[in-house]
Amino acid sequence: MRAPAEPAPPIDTDALIIGAGPVGLFQAFELGLLEVQAQLVDSLPYRGGQCIELYPDKPIYDIPGLKVCSGRELVHNLLQQIEPFHVPFHLGRQVNAVQRRDDGRFDVHTTLGDHFVARAIIIAAGVGSFLPRLLRLPGLERHEGTQLFYQVPEGLSFSGQRVVIVGNGPSALDWALRLAEANTLRAADRVTLMHRREVFDAAPEVVERMHAACRAQRMQFIAAQATGVEETAGRLSGLQVAGGDGAQHTLALDLLLVFQGLSPKLGPLSHWGLAMERKQLVVDTERFETSEPGIFAVGDINTYPGKKKLIVCGFHEATLAAFAAAARVFPDKAIPLQYTTTSPRLHHLLGVDTPAAE
Amino acid sequence: MRAPAEPAPPIDTDALIIGAGPVGLFQAFELGLLEVQAQLVDSLPYRGGQCIELYPDKPIYDIPGLKVCSGRELVHNLLQQIEPFHVPFHLGRQVNAVQRRDDGRFDVHTTLGDHFVARAIIIAAGVGSFLPRLLRLPGLERHEGTQLFYQVPEGLSFSGQRVVIVGNGPSALDWALRLAEANTLRAADRVTLMHRREVFDAAPEVVERMHAACRAQRMQFIAAQATGVEETAGRLSGLQVAGGDGAQHTLALDLLLVFQGLSPKLGPLSHWGLAMERKQLVVDTERFETSEPGIFAVGDINTYPGKKKLIVCGFHEATLAAFAAAARVFPDKAIPLQYTTTSPRLHHLLGVDTPAAE
Repeated sequence: MRAPAEPAPPIDTDALIIGAGPVGLFQAFELGLLEVQAQLVDSLPYRGGQCIELYPDKPIYDIPGLKVCSGRELVHNLLQQIEPFHVPFHLGRQVNAVQRRDDGRFDVHTTLGDHFVARAIIIAAGVGSFLPRLLRLPGLERHEGTQLFYQVPEGLSFSGQRVVIVGNGPSALDWALRLAEANTLRAADRVTLMHRREVFDAAPEVVERMHAACRAQRMQFIAAQATGVEETAGRLSGLQVAGGDGAQHTLALDLLLVFQGLSPKLGPLSHWGLAMERKQLVVDTERFETSEPGIFAVGDINTYPGKKKLIVCGFHEATLAAFAAAARVFPDKAIPLQYTTTSPRLHHLLGVDTPAAE
Repeated sequence: MRAPAEPAPPIDTDALIIGAGPVGLFQAFELGLLEVQAQLVDSLPYRGGQCIELYPDKPIYDIPGLKVCSGRELVHNLLQQIEPFHVPFHLGRQVNAVQRRDDGRFDVHTTLGDHFVARAIIIAAGVGSFLPRLLRLPGLERHEGTQLFYQVPEGLSFSGQRVVIVGNGPSALDWALRLAEANTLRAADRVTLMHRREVFDAAPEVVERMHAACRAQRMQFIAAQATGVEETAGRLSGLQVAGGDGAQHTLALDLLLVFQGLSPKLGPLSHWGLAMERKQLVVDTERFETSEPGIFAVGDINTYPGKKKLIVCGFHEATLAAFAAAARVFPDKAIPLQYTTTSPRLHHLLGVDTPAAE
């Protein structure tokens, strides 16, 4: 018999960076050079933010000194660059509460129950948290987590269930095929993939497998749009749909999986009481600090006169914010500007040998 | 018979960038993306500024996305990146005069007689122009260009001359060897290399060649310091020197070549009437414009609250200055922010094919 779980002690950190996109990653680097310990939180389950979510394989041409790189390559390079600082990542969770403590530090809580105590918070949240695009139908919302899922929880049983999957991208097709091709003992009773048009945003071989599964009657695809829900004794029992020809009918179902992609949402952040302008956090250009001392904002999420939403600008903002955060963490110390080319101290922090003096 | 040379017509350009260091180079890139034509002037005979002059082979660790690169590699990468814009370079000359014209443009003149007419000037002059460190002795200055040289002009005759070379670096040794090893018809009468200590800052094989030339009595090296000059009938006839033992004597000479390295000087720039603070040009953080509308300053030469002399900050400054300069060049046009990842227009300017739409 196990004792009831004690709440884990809070995680102490000098700085908490919210957002693991390119600017958040470089933020960790600049803090590292100033010997400020940082931890990173991101709502996505992987690192790289927009670079990975929106354009992993598309070329970027305006990173100085990198004639061309993909979003994935840029993130890879930045992760390599921050390696010496061993920054802990806390992925797949949102910061949902921030409170200033009496000692000037911040209590920060996430949707997965983490509790951080941080001397400085640096928001590098880009366009916000990437959250699943919802299927908006009157009365549908209340079934989320029981019959409606935007992410499939581990252990969900499909056995004998009639499953409707909405979407036309990799996740939708992947789940449709996984269920259609499952062995019969654990198989769903019926698998229906639905999207408003018969156009798929997935690798050709995956689309071909899906067509093959339809021909083998292991699943079906219908081109239609959901218009309403049907309930029976409080349970979701059907989805009302309209086909391309306008014909209405009802798809009986037990489980509804929706994969309509992710869309950025500012989320809880917009309720922290920070000064905002057109959904951006207002910062100064000396410290990139928000209206709340100790909370900084860098990258696409901030605004100031002249602001351009460019990665190259975020890198600069992160650099100056690092100096300002360091001044908070080490209030009694002057924060010197040292050069990575010449400083033995920085070479030590970066784990590179200082060449012998000439 | 040639007609007397007409002065060349002035060179029209949208923007003139002063300084071809990393920030000046990236400035040309950002202007290029905004379709602003730029030309570049630098006092050094090569591109790259401090990166090449001060640390060509030393590692830099804090360029975002480049875990490590040498000064030379960074400059190489930036030159590659700006290739699509075919930016003309005017090297080995200083801008020595800037005047605003009635039409709001600027007349810009250089020490080599170039005349530019530019709609915007962007000063990316770093720590200033790298100019030769002078040998300061009373009365010596007036012989510069006739018997005293910090750079050897093409066609200078050494035949039968007694040449004294001051310095211990590659240029000093190179010139000493060139003269010592010349064939007898054009040879100098006597070649003396002088430095205060018998320590050389050149490749070992070059130092060895120099020692061999001394053993063969084709040249001599003396460890001494210049303390004064001697003149005969208005001509520089000798250099008074003090050896390591304190002994004084005079080196008779006809030509004096001084190679004591380069040192950055703010130069004429400090007399343009721009607002300055501790030898830096004061700029705003929205446009990075100096006190003179249309003249911008980016990189190590500028100052503003929070300023850090880091390349990563200069890249941001150049980006915002480019938008401000573009607004000057195209006063009737909105300057949109476009992304190199998605904009067909930018892909066209960069000379890269736009992948077919999905």
